[in-house]
Amino acid sequence: MEEVRLIEVKEEILADNNKVASGVREKLRNSKTMLLNLMSSPGSGKTSLILRTLEGLKNNLRLGVIEADIDSTVDAEKVAAKGISAIQLRTGGFCHLDASMVTQGVNALDVDKLDLIIIENVGNLVCPAEFDTGAHKNVMILSVPEGDDKPLKYPLMFSICDVLLVNKIDYLSLSDFDMDALKKRVLALNKNIRILPVSCKTGEGIDAWVSWLKEAAAAYIT
Amino acid sequence: MEEVRLIEVKEEILADNNKVASGVREKLRNSKTMLLNLMSSPGSGKTSLILRTLEGLKNNLRLGVIEADIDSTVDAEKVAAKGISAIQLRTGGFCHLDASMVTQGVNALDVDKLDLIIIENVGNLVCPAEFDTGAHKNVMILSVPEGDDKPLKYPLMFSICDVLLVNKIDYLSLSDFDMDALKKRVLALNKNIRILPVSCKTGEGIDAWVSWLKEAAAAYIT
Repeated sequence: MEEVRLIEVKEEILADNNKVASGVREKLRNSKTMLLNLMSSPGSGKTSLILRTLEGLKNNLRLGVIEADIDSTVDAEKVAAKGISAIQLRTGGFCHLDASMVTQGVNALDVDKLDLIIIENVGNLVCPAEFDTGAHKNVMILSVPEGDDKPLKYPLMFSICDVLLVNKIDYLSLSDFDMDALKKRVLALNKNIRILPVSCKTGEGIDAWVSWLKEAAAAYIT
Repeated sequence: MEEVRLIEVKEEILADNNKVASGVREKLRNSKTMLLNLMSSPGSGKTSLILRTLEGLKNNLRLGVIEADIDSTVDAEKVAAKGISAIQLRTGGFCHLDASMVTQGVNALDVDKLDLIIIENVGNLVCPAEFDTGAHKNVMILSVPEGDDKPLKYPLMFSICDVLLVNKIDYLSLSDFDMDALKKRVLALNKNIRILPVSCKTGEGIDAWVSWLKEAAAAYIT
């Protein structure tokens, strides 16, 4: 088990976020490391997805995880228990990560020894969509119990992501969630997004997600 | 069916939020109207809970609803279809309501003819907890699929609420959600909070919630 390192982060009000974000992207390009920003509502399954992804990728890619939480270090501890380098950013009352905060996380990792760093952003469908973290790819999770109407209410998040993982498909039998209606609403906002149904509980769909991730990472690590 | 009125709101950066909030509370005290602020993550069931509450209360109290959304008017339309006065506040990119925004909603309602106004805040467990809206009571929903660890991650929201509704208990059979663990975590943050398990789908527990609400409203409307 790895040790969890905890960093208390604060927003640098005056920093030019886009400039800092470009700097992070460039730095990781040079070290051949892909940075992925994972976002969702609270409880949609970000930590479970990361744990499933670590299992699927551990023999292929060298991984690091940056966890963001307003409080607590429970998520980073779960990741570290798998032997993965985990940084916990504690954001205080903050509702999103910006590029300066991510920089602090990246600087605490030995990036030359990592192929992929996954950021688990603060659980929130609103604010994280507004701040470039410096990630190369943005991925969001929507879970079935949240409902198929969320693209109507939180359009920016769906617009900026490269992949939408529709998690908790094991709940579909108890739900009136309409997958076709969801897909139509999402594609109307973002025609290039890849939509992948998964269940972190049963493992269904995880292979397709891991395949996407390996292929995406290949462009960065070589 | 009532007509939905739409107001585009902007944050008044310089306003003293606490002062405006006290003004809203006082105004509604004088008109014998209770103001309730309902908060949760996206998709936890705020609109469904409001529709169930309207059914349960319509013969007892005169109701109005203020809906907040970053985009769309779908929620206000569902409420208006029940013949209830509904104001839709469209917050643009904004992630929470403040007291100035709520004032705009309250001013658009005929408060002398209302006993209870319910605010459906933006779906977000972080930012809405930081802003006094002027409500007399704060109520939050946590749904079973979000998990029992949320009080560890979003402690402020659980600390400021008078009632926690644990929704979607119809999902308990498919879930490893631990209700006792949740209650312990919540009560450690807020020993005065009332915790009520409900299902907006089956109606289970709604009577207890409606009873709480009638009793709470009695202190304001008489």
